[in-house]
Amino acid sequence: MLIRVINPNTTASMTRAIARAAERMSAPGVTVQAVNPGSGPASIESHYDEALAVPGIIEEILAGDAEGVDGYVIACFGDPGLLAAREIARGPVVGMAEAAMRTAGYLGRSFSVVTTLARTIGRAQDLAAQFGTAHACAGYHAIDLPVLELETDPATYATLLDRCRRALDSDGSDVVVLGCAGFAPLAQTLQGDLGVPVVDGGAAGVSEVRGLIDQGLSTSRVLEFARPPAKAYAGSLARFAL
Amino acid sequence: MLIRVINPNTTASMTRAIARAAERMSAPGVTVQAVNPGSGPASIESHYDEALAVPGIIEEILAGDAEGVDGYVIACFGDPGLLAAREIARGPVVGMAEAAMRTAGYLGRSFSVVTTLARTIGRAQDLAAQFGTAHACAGYHAIDLPVLELETDPATYATLLDRCRRALDSDGSDVVVLGCAGFAPLAQTLQGDLGVPVVDGGAAGVSEVRGLIDQGLSTSRVLEFARPPAKAYAGSLARFAL
Amino acid sequence: MLIRVINPNTTASMTRAIARAAERMSAPGVTVQAVNPGSGPASIESHYDEALAVPGIIEEILAGDAEGVDGYVIACFGDPGLLAAREIARGPVVGMAEAAMRTAGYLGRSFSVVTTLARTIGRAQDLAAQFGTAHACAGYHAIDLPVLELETDPATYATLLDRCRRALDSDGSDVVVLGCAGFAPLAQTLQGDLGVPVVDGGAAGVSEVRGLIDQGLSTSRVLEFARPPAKAYAGSLARFAL
Amino acid sequence: MLIRVINPNTTASMTRAIARAAERMSAPGVTVQAVNPGSGPASIESHYDEALAVPGIIEEILAGDAEGVDGYVIACFGDPGLLAAREIARGPVVGMAEAAMRTAGYLGRSFSVVTTLARTIGRAQDLAAQFGTAHACAGYHAIDLPVLELETDPATYATLLDRCRRALDSDGSDVVVLGCAGFAPLAQTLQGDLGVPVVDGGAAGVSEVRGLIDQGLSTSRVLEFARPPAKAYAGSLARFAL
Amino acid sequence: MLIRVINPNTTASMTRAIARAAERMSAPGVTVQAVNPGSGPASIESHYDEALAVPGIIEEILAGDAEGVDGYVIACFGDPGLLAAREIARGPVVGMAEAAMRTAGYLGRSFSVVTTLARTIGRAQDLAAQFGTAHACAGYHAIDLPVLELETDPATYATLLDRCRRALDSDGSDVVVLGCAGFAPLAQTLQGDLGVPVVDGGAAGVSEVRGLIDQGLSTSRVLEFARPPAKAYAGSLARFAL
Amino acid sequence: MLIRVINPNTTASMTRAIARAAERMSAPGVTVQAVNPGSGPASIESHYDEALAVPGIIEEILAGDAEGVDGYVIACFGDPGLLAAREIARGPVVGMAEAAMRTAGYLGRSFSVVTTLARTIGRAQDLAAQFGTAHACAGYHAIDLPVLELETDPATYATLLDRCRRALDSDGSDVVVLGCAGFAPLAQTLQGDLGVPVVDGGAAGVSEVRGLIDQGLSTSRVLEFARPPAKAYAGSLARFAL
Repeated sequence: MLIRVINPNTTASMTRAIARAAERMSAPGVTVQAVNPGSGPASIESHYDEALAVPGIIEEILAGDAEGVDGYVIACFGDPGLLAAREIARGPVVGMAEAAMRTAGYLGRSFSVVTTLARTIGRAQDLAAQFGTAHACAGYHAIDLPVLELETDPATYATLLDRCRRALDSDGSDVVVLGCAGFAPLAQTLQGDLGVPVVDGGAAGVSEVRGLIDQGLSTSRVLEFARPPAKAYAGSLARFAL
Repeated sequence: MLIRVINPNTTASMTRAIARAAERMSAPGVTVQAVNPGSGPASIESHYDEALAVPGIIEEILAGDAEGVDGYVIACFGDPGLLAAREIARGPVVGMAEAAMRTAGYLGRSFSVVTTLARTIGRAQDLAAQFGTAHACAGYHAIDLPVLELETDPATYATLLDRCRRALDSDGSDVVVLGCAGFAPLAQTLQGDLGVPVVDGGAAGVSEVRGLIDQGLSTSRVLEFARPPAKAYAGSLARFAL
Repeated sequence: MLIRVINPNTTASMTRAIARAAERMSAPGVTVQAVNPGSGPASIESHYDEALAVPGIIEEILAGDAEGVDGYVIACFGDPGLLAAREIARGPVVGMAEAAMRTAGYLGRSFSVVTTLARTIGRAQDLAAQFGTAHACAGYHAIDLPVLELETDPATYATLLDRCRRALDSDGSDVVVLGCAGFAPLAQTLQGDLGVPVVDGGAAGVSEVRGLIDQGLSTSRVLEFARPPAKAYAGSLARFAL
Repeated sequence: MLIRVINPNTTASMTRAIARAAERMSAPGVTVQAVNPGSGPASIESHYDEALAVPGIIEEILAGDAEGVDGYVIACFGDPGLLAAREIARGPVVGMAEAAMRTAGYLGRSFSVVTTLARTIGRAQDLAAQFGTAHACAGYHAIDLPVLELETDPATYATLLDRCRRALDSDGSDVVVLGCAGFAPLAQTLQGDLGVPVVDGGAAGVSEVRGLIDQGLSTSRVLEFARPPAKAYAGSLARFAL
Repeated sequence: MLIRVINPNTTASMTRAIARAAERMSAPGVTVQAVNPGSGPASIESHYDEALAVPGIIEEILAGDAEGVDGYVIACFGDPGLLAAREIARGPVVGMAEAAMRTAGYLGRSFSVVTTLARTIGRAQDLAAQFGTAHACAGYHAIDLPVLELETDPATYATLLDRCRRALDSDGSDVVVLGCAGFAPLAQTLQGDLGVPVVDGGAAGVSEVRGLIDQGLSTSRVLEFARPPAKAYAGSLARFAL
Repeated sequence: MLIRVINPNTTASMTRAIARAAERMSAPGVTVQAVNPGSGPASIESHYDEALAVPGIIEEILAGDAEGVDGYVIACFGDPGLLAAREIARGPVVGMAEAAMRTAGYLGRSFSVVTTLARTIGRAQDLAAQFGTAHACAGYHAIDLPVLELETDPATYATLLDRCRRALDSDGSDVVVLGCAGFAPLAQTLQGDLGVPVVDGGAAGVSEVRGLIDQGLSTSRVLEFARPPAKAYAGSLARFAL
């Protein structure tokens, strides 16, 4: 079974960090890879970035299907392009945010989301509503660090740990959901230090994709998620005509 | 005041039909234009099409702002790229679906959405939930005609009229919301024949944009809709770096 | 086009202030007037006041229709008598609260309502739920000044500005909705000082009514908002028999 | 203990029918009376009627308090004037619809509302949402008979029985809520014939008021339901100044 | 009429305290008794305790029905076994939490729940959602005292009073709902000291059961709450076979 | 890794069928077993049965923990005892209904639940609301066959297939969720015949438990799901004292 984690931004060092964290979910017969598109934003910190990450994600799905990939995880907490990806991928596609927020439902009463920039909280709220997890999300919090500084800022871990502690306290929650794929390498240490479950949506996504494949389940092919109607595409996007 | 209606697909004949319908909302001092991107799908009938229409919409916003456009309407019932457009446009941006569904709230108890293909209903439901109009939407219905056949199929009007009548009856609703920009030229005749208000989101969107500008209102520039952080864009999308 | 803004209380100085603010929305061919009933409470600060403002509102609608008014705005944030007015007015009727809260939806993620007395917050919450805007309302706040002291208290503006600032901060919102028609003259200055959109529901209501009329839309006449059944009215209300 | 049931319309024969049904809830030490205002509509079948019934209801509350009434039921399924009445009545005030719909919650999974005219269903839906009972209401149904013909039309009972049976079947519900005070005399026979609980909100309202008084409970006097601020009332409503 | 209040824990001194508080709701012809099971937890402070209290509650219902009991109140704020009890009891069964939270709806805008241990708040939230009262619950608060120490700790009343005061203040609520049957003896004093309605669900439950019986209402016997299908029960629970 | 599926009823043949279906989810290093309690109902078809299945489930958890079980699935669509089990089990516990309904969220727009007896639908609705999946559940349907006749009735499969087909059609859904553990052996054939994903919550539950363990996640031990307070248990349940 070949599962591919798509980092939707174009920063290779972040893709490598996601790959290391995702490999934790490898198993006999289960290969987990991480890739990123060649085109698009270096990080995703706005609706603008997110929208423009989608063509690259779709190219990765088209390429992956040609290479026999069995299922995909979209490793950005905004779940960009999720429904479009489901329409075209041969196997299941799981978003990092949906996996993280649904997984938290098995672990406690309510969770706190801790993310990078406050301006992305609105998107997380929209997704929580869409996935039916809004009632369980006790609060959204930001550490105010840009995505690309997570790896290089020596204070990242301490800042994140402190923000999580304050979130749990003020929200009265019992689970933490990490709101950025860049936090993946810190998840296990954080769980140890906080004493509550800490969900990394990348790992959760791989787990869900693997489980769906093992159950023989994939995206429904009737109605909304049937193959999109074929049609002409104009201009610089002409290559996307199905 | 210059308002630009963006038809997010690349079919010029449809843009012209939208332009004719939108001109109804022109007034002394208010110019309404319709445009479409040069790149992207010929019509929008899937999440895939919708996602890939967004780069073209963004290019139209960037161009429009350079040309002094005061506000925009996105004239596709899936409101593609709406939040991204709000982040970057100088003036207000209104989606066709949000304008239509909010406008219906002033007219009756509940509305029926009538659209082209059943596979797009899920997106309309997501939008209704996001805009807070789900409680007022009594039903979603499709006429099962592809967008690009609306203009050429001689039975379009009769099919649409019949579907609206059955929708009003089965839903117990008192307003119709048209779920495709391609229906705009038929809205007024339909309202006459049905005897209930028929909302074309394109006209509603122009009305809202004009009203916002007259009130001196535009997208908030704090938090979520502040200008996106500047960053590198790689590959074929490099031109989108802000 | 003749739009009439009904101030539902009987205080003429407040009606004049509303008229000055509403005139901002006049345009070539669009006349905006403000009126108030001859009977009823001097201000509306309770469910009791609001209920007893409704006969006066209805009289204004009946009179306005006789005088050729094309549409109405009810300029009190409790939207008193809105549904009754819709049943009988020839043209569209828009409430100040519904217009303000729906308009805010085009401008940001969430809004804070700032009103006069805390005891009116419950009504605003009921309306937000009814209009489908509750999810976008991040908080309700009161300045604890009676309506009729707004014009005369020299500290009104400073108090309001301070309350709005604290509301934006504690709510994490990006838009302010003014919860009293008496605040209308302060809206534009407030927007300048706060740096976020400030919505005055009176202006928003005029904008919506104008837009509906331009679109050829008015209250649906089937089912709930059909003309009320004719019947006897007894006693001091006998004149209301239709 | 003196409980007064206010029939908000001005039709005395209907008040007598309500009185007979309400007397069922009398007990040693508990006197139940029914009254109606002298001013207002002969029946309530629109938002217009409902709004104009409120001044009469308020007069009955003011009179009742002067006569030592301990609590009130508002016996119209639209619960007109409920919150205003709560602000001024010395003791508890319960609406017929809120009592009926909350009572149904103790009896089964979901209830069907059966009322007179379809145009009143919207109001019932608004109330269900306000009271938190919308999730339990499986459907709203009308028998299409005007309120004042209920007593005189010989087919009323058969029509109502048939409508209830069809409602239970199509809704999959297990309780009936009667949506008009005029149905009160038929409730017990209907329950026998249908084989499911049939809730008459008039009786339910009396039961709730009696229970609140026995528990020493009445409307909270802090915040929203404190005594309304005193102020001038102009014109024909001047007598309502508190 | 014989109403039995079931204290679902096995602590007789608490049953006696509940009995004294419930007797307040006795009346001519209405006998109110309190009982507790012989098997089960000494107090209910976890999902574990609550689940294991249910067999004892069911035995009390079976015994009560044999002794001619007309209706039951389950006097624990988690409403353990409520739906199972409804399936088998001859007369109505009301849970303490549902009665308290619905009763609060007649008294004000929103209520604060004050309970014993914070770990039980999740259950109260689940119940509020199930009963449609979540929108009216402004906050949940705990005094951090175990149930069995309420009677013996001399500081119980002062702690509870202080917690209620802070809850009303921080929640902006106007009613208190007591979240433990062990608080019943303190309800009236608390109401006097706080100046807002204080709802004891035990008394509210008795009031509701009495009212249902007076109205001739009991659990629906169609669909979900029909008598459970007869079947074998194995092992130590074999006596529960119906 | 040792995962134990608890069939909460006491019918061994059903446990064996569940075991066969669950073994599908075994893998190198992952052992999946099925067990059932020695005490309790032969099948679960009412709230009464469900409540009385919980002591047996708890005994299985206590025994399993002593035997080194790493995680549990509760294999009845009512998820009986789920929260109590979470408080005491060392590892994660997943309910069949929550796993099935959350899993369906990755596969399509909306799902139809098909179960055995109509009287159990209310419980499924309560669970859907609790898990945040109610918006995605398009309908609940019953085949009207008792649980214990599923294995022996030769028409079970044809009846189930027909009911699923009609459910998909009337609900407009794109996924089927099987609402009884007894359907597990039929899931794969059904998926082939229906052409849409068919989710068996037993397999989904095993998949989730395995995934949680692989991620190093288990029930949070702060607040609600901390170990229950120790206390006395009286009578026939004395052995449950922790």
